[in-house]
Amino acid sequence: MRVVDLIRKKRDGGELTAEEVKFFIAGAIDNTTPDYQMAAWLMAVLWRGMTKAELAALTEAMLHSGTSLDFSDLPAPKVDKHSTGGVGDKTSLVIAPVVAAAGLYVPMISGRGLGHSGGTLDKLEAIPGFTTALTLEKFREVLANCGCAMIGQTAEVAPADKRIYALRDVTGTVESPYLICASIMSKKLAEGIDALVLDVKTGSGAFMKTEKDAAFLAELMVETGERMGKRVVALITDMDQPLGNYIGNALEVAECIEVLRGGGPDDLRRLCVELSAWMLLLGGRVATLEEGARVVEGHLTGGRALEKFRIMVRLQGGEERVADDPGRLPQARNRSELLSPASGHVAVMDCEKFGVASCVLGGGREKKEDTVDPAVGIILHKKTGDSVKSGEPLCTLHYNSGTRLDEARGLLAAGYQIAPGAAPEGLRDRKLVRRVIGRHGASGPDSHTSP
Amino acid sequence: MRVVDLIRKKRDGGELTAEEVKFFIAGAIDNTTPDYQMAAWLMAVLWRGMTKAELAALTEAMLHSGTSLDFSDLPAPKVDKHSTGGVGDKTSLVIAPVVAAAGLYVPMISGRGLGHSGGTLDKLEAIPGFTTALTLEKFREVLANCGCAMIGQTAEVAPADKRIYALRDVTGTVESPYLICASIMSKKLAEGIDALVLDVKTGSGAFMKTEKDAAFLAELMVETGERMGKRVVALITDMDQPLGNYIGNALEVAECIEVLRGGGPDDLRRLCVELSAWMLLLGGRVATLEEGARVVEGHLTGGRALEKFRIMVRLQGGEERVADDPGRLPQARNRSELLSPASGHVAVMDCEKFGVASCVLGGGREKKEDTVDPAVGIILHKKTGDSVKSGEPLCTLHYNSGTRLDEARGLLAAGYQIAPGAAPEGLRDRKLVRRVIGRHGASGPDSHTSP
Repeated sequence: MRVVDLIRKKRDGGELTAEEVKFFIAGAIDNTTPDYQMAAWLMAVLWRGMTKAELAALTEAMLHSGTSLDFSDLPAPKVDKHSTGGVGDKTSLVIAPVVAAAGLYVPMISGRGLGHSGGTLDKLEAIPGFTTALTLEKFREVLANCGCAMIGQTAEVAPADKRIYALRDVTGTVESPYLICASIMSKKLAEGIDALVLDVKTGSGAFMKTEKDAAFLAELMVETGERMGKRVVALITDMDQPLGNYIGNALEVAECIEVLRGGGPDDLRRLCVELSAWMLLLGGRVATLEEGARVVEGHLTGGRALEKFRIMVRLQGGEERVADDPGRLPQARNRSELLSPASGHVAVMDCEKFGVASCVLGGGREKKEDTVDPAVGIILHKKTGDSVKSGEPLCTLHYNSGTRLDEARGLLAAGYQIAPGAAPEGLRDRKLVRRVIGRHGASGPDSHTSP
Repeated sequence: MRVVDLIRKKRDGGELTAEEVKFFIAGAIDNTTPDYQMAAWLMAVLWRGMTKAELAALTEAMLHSGTSLDFSDLPAPKVDKHSTGGVGDKTSLVIAPVVAAAGLYVPMISGRGLGHSGGTLDKLEAIPGFTTALTLEKFREVLANCGCAMIGQTAEVAPADKRIYALRDVTGTVESPYLICASIMSKKLAEGIDALVLDVKTGSGAFMKTEKDAAFLAELMVETGERMGKRVVALITDMDQPLGNYIGNALEVAECIEVLRGGGPDDLRRLCVELSAWMLLLGGRVATLEEGARVVEGHLTGGRALEKFRIMVRLQGGEERVADDPGRLPQARNRSELLSPASGHVAVMDCEKFGVASCVLGGGREKKEDTVDPAVGIILHKKTGDSVKSGEPLCTLHYNSGTRLDEARGLLAAGYQIAPGAAPEGLRDRKLVRRVIGRHGASGPDSHTSP
């Protein structure tokens, strides 16, 4: 077998056998296949797509390129949630503790932010002392003792994905839904989980701008997971505006703590409840989504979710008192308000601009090597459908260095579109969950089921 | 400007500006762009194709990546011919001397054979002592003194093509007509020529199996050459069977010497005359194709072409006596005849198999590193449309080692398709030149003109 023949076959629209896919990934792992052949193949895959059998073979080969975790000795099902990323998208910090509080295990391996999109690891590391760089032994220990644990990608898990992802980033092959699916699913399935809930974002702040593209990716992931014997559903959720009101690492931790204390903004709380309820349902902890939602709400208002969060923070070396006093999180030195230029209502938010603005303030990475400032960010006072008067604050920027403040303000000003008069009916209360995809789907208050 | 953005733009079907193409090729020349980004871009080009402006910019950037030869001080137009390659395709060895005899200069930079396809350099090197590795100074000297000179690709001419071609070979991106066009035209235009005749082969022994594909490539090349101010025509010619009767390096030199002495097989002689006549027409040496053909025939029968060949061989270090005694060329030790299994006529020749058979005997390269045996090859006694009796020889294999003789015989046996009865009318005398493409086209006995 020669790699160039596999490239040519894919280029011509042929279907690779499982053997051929395995051969290709073997060459990626042991570095016998040079980068340039991998790059040509990745572009051919982006062009031609993959059959379901090819995608399953690719995911499986990448999954088996490294260690697969095995938590089968732990006395309850293991479940996880994965989001494709967005702005203010912070649900993991609520979901992991609340699902652990409900008696399931959540072994979560997360990523960092890049560009406009935030990353769970950066948020966690805003907590003084918190480390996400645990060994796999330590990860298991925290998981066993707390019910949830949150770490970053390690060299042992899916190393083929590491090499392929780095190449995709510099060869214009990030956007292939097949490659996205294999990358996500190989890592998630290596976590030793029984069930997975996918939060596939769509809208102006998501990678998948249209619901059609999001649903296509969601279907690929659900089907791939099911082929590997996992229970998987995907929720297509709104990212046409930031989730919650806080953007920025420490600010988002603070907002999650509000939710863990039974409060927080309505959209964030609702999405956390719905995603967690699905995890309880797939994990066999509840019989219906409604029951799942009741259990989750109970743990959020009853303090058990916050307690799990406190334990996880302590076990991962963090300052657990932030759970009771978010004021202990890093604070930016300066504030700057953005005022509305007109009266009326917020008609549209260009969500990606809000993420970029936070990044420009130092809260995110423009290049992978960049370090992030945990304290900076944006607090939104107005979101889509809200009424606003001329001169009233739309949002507040939290910043340390003023160097790029004007740039950030410019992005936010361009990100808010104000229209005259009152908002049309329903604009404020748009559906957060647009569709649920997966054979385990069941009707919920905010969703419908696809076959 | 970032290379990854150029990859993405091409991937999404966008048109690169001349600036962007130049930037990309600059990175290829100075090695600042890594192979993996070049590979992804090449695959995106294979996928999306190029506009005429992009292709012209690419060809020009590659042309200017190294030395452009300048023979403007020589007192007659400089013309060249390029063939896309086939089996028994040996016209260059006749054309260069005959066009030089007619008073034009032919500075020819050629390639080596690979796979089923032969290469001019390998044929020339079958002449004892002949060297194709001249410095550019020596190349100029031979050209000035003889009117023609034939060398291999040097490091100075179009180095970007060298790097890109090596990558295309291992990344499944050889087949793009745009990349083929830029590769050929950048090298040919660097030769400092005024006019170029392209011999684009089509059929079972050509890279372009269909006339449609061949015409598409031909049109790209003609248009690219014309944009650079050159006079260019392309002849789409038949490669459904080998050209001439001899395949193999020394054998093909011997057959060319027959033509240079006024003899040789009809198809080879006719194609040499037609291509040479076009060169004389584009080079302004004659007013019509018919006149060109008459001039060429005169030099072939009158001995002036053979004399030019003799001089070139001498100036390039070769044994000039081969011109009068082809028996001085390397001879294989053994002969093996392939007999016809049936009576009837040759209905079809699978041309590529004849090239592969010669390669298997040691006359060609399976990998670029292979060395070739100049003496081996095949002499055809029967070609398409010829009548044959059962047990009559179809062809004779000339070989040194018998190791792969059976394999070669098997290929040849499979390459001949014998049908019962007499050949249908016209099968034997098929058109050799199927179309002529280019604005300089004029009607000839064996061609028609495209606009």
